[in-house]
Amino acid sequence: MRKYSGKSDFPVSKIRRYLEPGPIVLVSSKWKDKTNIMTMGWHTVMEFVPSLVGCIIAGGNYSFDIIRKSRECVINLPTLNMIDAVIRIGNSSGDEIDKFKEFSLTPDKAQEVDAPLIRECHANFECKLYDDSLIDEYNFFIFEVVKAHVARSPKHPKTMHYMGDGMFMVAGSIVNKRSLFTKVL
Amino acid sequence: MRKYSGKSDFPVSKIRRYLEPGPIVLVSSKWKDKTNIMTMGWHTVMEFVPSLVGCIIAGGNYSFDIIRKSRECVINLPTLNMIDAVIRIGNSSGDEIDKFKEFSLTPDKAQEVDAPLIRECHANFECKLYDDSLIDEYNFFIFEVVKAHVARSPKHPKTMHYMGDGMFMVAGSIVNKRSLFTKVL
Repeated sequence: MRKYSGKSDFPVSKIRRYLEPGPIVLVSSKWKDKTNIMTMGWHTVMEFVPSLVGCIIAGGNYSFDIIRKSRECVINLPTLNMIDAVIRIGNSSGDEIDKFKEFSLTPDKAQEVDAPLIRECHANFECKLYDDSLIDEYNFFIFEVVKAHVARSPKHPKTMHYMGDGMFMVAGSIVNKRSLFTKVL
Repeated sequence: MRKYSGKSDFPVSKIRRYLEPGPIVLVSSKWKDKTNIMTMGWHTVMEFVPSLVGCIIAGGNYSFDIIRKSRECVINLPTLNMIDAVIRIGNSSGDEIDKFKEFSLTPDKAQEVDAPLIRECHANFECKLYDDSLIDEYNFFIFEVVKAHVARSPKHPKTMHYMGDGMFMVAGSIVNKRSLFTKVL
């Protein structure tokens, strides 16, 4: 897998560019000496400033306890060349294997959190837990993105968008409709 | 615009197939005699059963009050042929125009809510407000999808995925990776 080691800093208030289109993401986490990775499809941008992302992390996941205890994680953006790893990560549990080793992924040191970045991913968003009020009822975590790293190229990564039932939609063509907007958000 | 009038009932527990990939959607609503439509990009599936969808409806939107009072809406799935209407709906306000008339959209009667379905959309999800506890703080509404209608074809609609800045990603190719899953969700 390609490794993106020369990433640029990216404004956290603009990470919607990558997350709003609805890609499947990899969530990396760390608690004490244990790291883990999970595959996640249920997330939404919630605010520009502070940069908030809400997401579902099911209670049965090994990552759930790690993230609840450490109150942080990294949301990583994988691309099509990682599709097999993305699926296998989602179909295995961190209490049995070391997912970084098992799937030959490279942990990079983050700046604002202890959880590792995944170097093979196009972008990495360092997150701190911002609001835990809906965790008990819905497994819904609200994170603040405190630091963002994005690969310089390609400009439009081939993200994967999960549809259930083993099917993915791959990011297609880009349409620029800026001229039609009265105010561009 | 093509009108999808012969839609099939669709299991509400499976609507993630359409919403999880992150399409921009149109939210239709009604309060007393007034209907409205807004464009929405910040949403996530939250649960299969009950079928829950969480989304941000900004407080400044005309739809915000309509939906908060009526406690219901319809989430409609537009496709690429509607892109200009989708943008113009997002850049206009329902307190000035009747969006169904202005954009030549056809309101259809829903079954479980008073808000109208948009016939030109590929799918329509009738929603009732399920949890309002995060509306004041985040403009975050949690809806239960109580009824779903989906066009029989095409099987893979050309949904649009907003990236900010006037740019959309259009749904691309479909990859079937079912064979790689140990358990398929």
